[in-house]
Amino acid sequence: MKLIKTPVKGMNDWLPREEALREYVKALIVREYSAAGFMQIETPAVEHIENLTGKNGGDNEKLIFRVQKRGEELTRAIESNGELCDSGLRYDLTVPLSRYYANNAANLPVPFPAMQIGNVWRADRPQKGRFRQFTQCDIDILGDATPTAEISLISATSGVLRKLGFDNFTVRINDRRLLKLSAEKCGFKPEDFDSVFIILDKMDKIGLDGVKTELLESGFDTEAVDKYIAVYTGCEDVLVSDFAAAVGTEAQAVAASLELIMRAAASATVGGVKLKFDPTLVRGMSYYTGTIFEIQMDGYGYSVGGGGRYDEMLGKFIGQNVPACGFSLGFERIVGALSDSGFVIPAEGKSVAFLADKSITEEEMTKMYADAAALRAAGNRVLVTSKQKNFGFQKQKLEAEGYNEYVVYPVQPISHQSISHEE
Amino acid sequence: MKLIKTPVKGMNDWLPREEALREYVKALIVREYSAAGFMQIETPAVEHIENLTGKNGGDNEKLIFRVQKRGEELTRAIESNGELCDSGLRYDLTVPLSRYYANNAANLPVPFPAMQIGNVWRADRPQKGRFRQFTQCDIDILGDATPTAEISLISATSGVLRKLGFDNFTVRINDRRLLKLSAEKCGFKPEDFDSVFIILDKMDKIGLDGVKTELLESGFDTEAVDKYIAVYTGCEDVLVSDFAAAVGTEAQAVAASLELIMRAAASATVGGVKLKFDPTLVRGMSYYTGTIFEIQMDGYGYSVGGGGRYDEMLGKFIGQNVPACGFSLGFERIVGALSDSGFVIPAEGKSVAFLADKSITEEEMTKMYADAAALRAAGNRVLVTSKQKNFGFQKQKLEAEGYNEYVVYPVQPISHQSISHEE
Repeated sequence: MKLIKTPVKGMNDWLPREEALREYVKALIVREYSAAGFMQIETPAVEHIENLTGKNGGDNEKLIFRVQKRGEELTRAIESNGELCDSGLRYDLTVPLSRYYANNAANLPVPFPAMQIGNVWRADRPQKGRFRQFTQCDIDILGDATPTAEISLISATSGVLRKLGFDNFTVRINDRRLLKLSAEKCGFKPEDFDSVFIILDKMDKIGLDGVKTELLESGFDTEAVDKYIAVYTGCEDVLVSDFAAAVGTEAQAVAASLELIMRAAASATVGGVKLKFDPTLVRGMSYYTGTIFEIQMDGYGYSVGGGGRYDEMLGKFIGQNVPACGFSLGFERIVGALSDSGFVIPAEGKSVAFLADKSITEEEMTKMYADAAALRAAGNRVLVTSKQKNFGFQKQKLEAEGYNEYVVYPVQPISHQSISHEE
Repeated sequence: MKLIKTPVKGMNDWLPREEALREYVKALIVREYSAAGFMQIETPAVEHIENLTGKNGGDNEKLIFRVQKRGEELTRAIESNGELCDSGLRYDLTVPLSRYYANNAANLPVPFPAMQIGNVWRADRPQKGRFRQFTQCDIDILGDATPTAEISLISATSGVLRKLGFDNFTVRINDRRLLKLSAEKCGFKPEDFDSVFIILDKMDKIGLDGVKTELLESGFDTEAVDKYIAVYTGCEDVLVSDFAAAVGTEAQAVAASLELIMRAAASATVGGVKLKFDPTLVRGMSYYTGTIFEIQMDGYGYSVGGGGRYDEMLGKFIGQNVPACGFSLGFERIVGALSDSGFVIPAEGKSVAFLADKSITEEEMTKMYADAAALRAAGNRVLVTSKQKNFGFQKQKLEAEGYNEYVVYPVQPISHQSISHEE
């Protein structure tokens, strides 16, 4: 029986050239984050189903790949008409990080600067640039309630983007407390906040009028809606302090901390970084409690990273709250943007192919491998492979992988031994 | 509701120190294999259930983590009492590689030297040093029927082990054709070969007498068993050519190729490598068709890697056979052996912690991040974090992560600004 050639729906086979770029970006991210003191950890891809469905995943909880029980447990579950799954593939790195911290806090520094790079899975509708298995790069600082956490996260992440050659990005920043205070001031009820924020979040797509219409259509009080729209009128370039003044006294303390974070993060990023206060920034996850941020790249309609402070989430695992703040880089989107820009990985050394002809003797083969070892020791990539009948086709394929120098063994006694691709 | 703190059964949380070693080993492996021309690829962790249960996985097929269908497909499956799973987590990298090659051959060189590092999952009984999620590092050469493939694989893998500082290992080598020819010569039936080999494979545990007893207990013909035992008597240090001579003419051609591979691989490995012909080496998987090998490390009762030639497996995906040969490194065991040996990752630069006191001003904070950036640019690791009330405890935890220099901001105007851990 022939087997199925294509990957499972929505997941990807990465070709060598694609994978080389992915690995280059990953290595650069790990190097930069490590230099900034973030400590890499690893959690299993498979997580308890109870943890995945604990209301920390928002809409992602609808997209879980569930893993079936095995052996006797499965038999019992089938017989008793019970739950057939005991676990699932993680849909983000935040739930596993929270569990990890609960499990290992005694062995970790306080504050704990964590770095996690790994795959996550979501049974999303497949579409261009969105996969069902994709890589996330998260840094989080657990146990630090001060703005140092936000500043370190924003400057480290912006620094990675700058090292990758991007300078066309802006960090949009807001604070969930400002969102709440402004909704409260206008007269919305706390239980409605999330619904109101979801509509406000659409501002850049549907405009202020659109937001007003949707709020009214959702049945919210007309007076509250009018006040709310007044607060967000002309807020595209509002200063934090001016916005806070309009919202009230409590907002002004939040604004002071936000302004400090913005100024310090800008000067802390090597090469600088643009930060922009955006009072309409919401971020989807309701677990955020304070600062929230998102990276906007010019020319792209989606964010390439985001995060924020979530001081109450770890409490669900530990039983007592631990302040926490994190920043997630959209790895796939960054690789995509680099690819779009025609980025070429800086070459180290030459790429040479040694081709063993059928006629090769043992002695010549030994020499071939010795020559290869010497060239590799000098920092070059040397492939030793069999020469094919259709040498032209073989060279063409190798050129596509970056090879441009070929040596056939046994080396011809006459003339040049190196056949370059121009010949 | 509190959530579950521990990882799912048999899977692991890796602490920063453990993960640092894992990442160091991974990076070294990728660097060495890349220098030898192996091209890294990536396949999804989730594979079609049909491909996983296609009889290429041997006993591993019993250990699959199955992934449930979703949405309407699940509803339909439940209603029709049908199969609830459409996919599963891969239990090795060979099945995905075969599918990948079938799917992408047109975009790949021939021969194709592939490298794959990734996690695999097996619902094995958890035990010391064996996990249900673990990392495998495979190199494979697809489309090369010549011994160049074996020589390149063995020398590259041995080279990685040498670069990691190991010199106490031996590559045991055999050929499935020798196993078959010897079983055939003694009078076993082809359909019994696999059962006979499974018993022969236990030689190092139960000895020649044990093998004889088990073969007889399994009901094999006494005369065949006697002949078989005679062939393997005193074979611990037999030469390939002597063993082949005892088996027959056909075996002698196989022996010549095996001897060439052994001599060439030994001289092709930088620093050299011990290779030992072991006619009792079987390797579990029945898909092997030619050369098979396994790495034995002194002082460890298990192999730290193995592989062989499997010329017929890709045919199941493509419809026509493609010669293939692969070598899998036991990543977890190598990391474990390094850890046992007290291996320390070579340090690059200093590890310095900058600690922001509560009293820090914005100006001092800006200076702190600027100082950190300058030290990082000089190749050091600099963590910027909040100073905790219990500074002694904080230092102790940071020391465990490799920090030994601390600067508190605002820097004290008097005396030394750097507080070393001796104080």
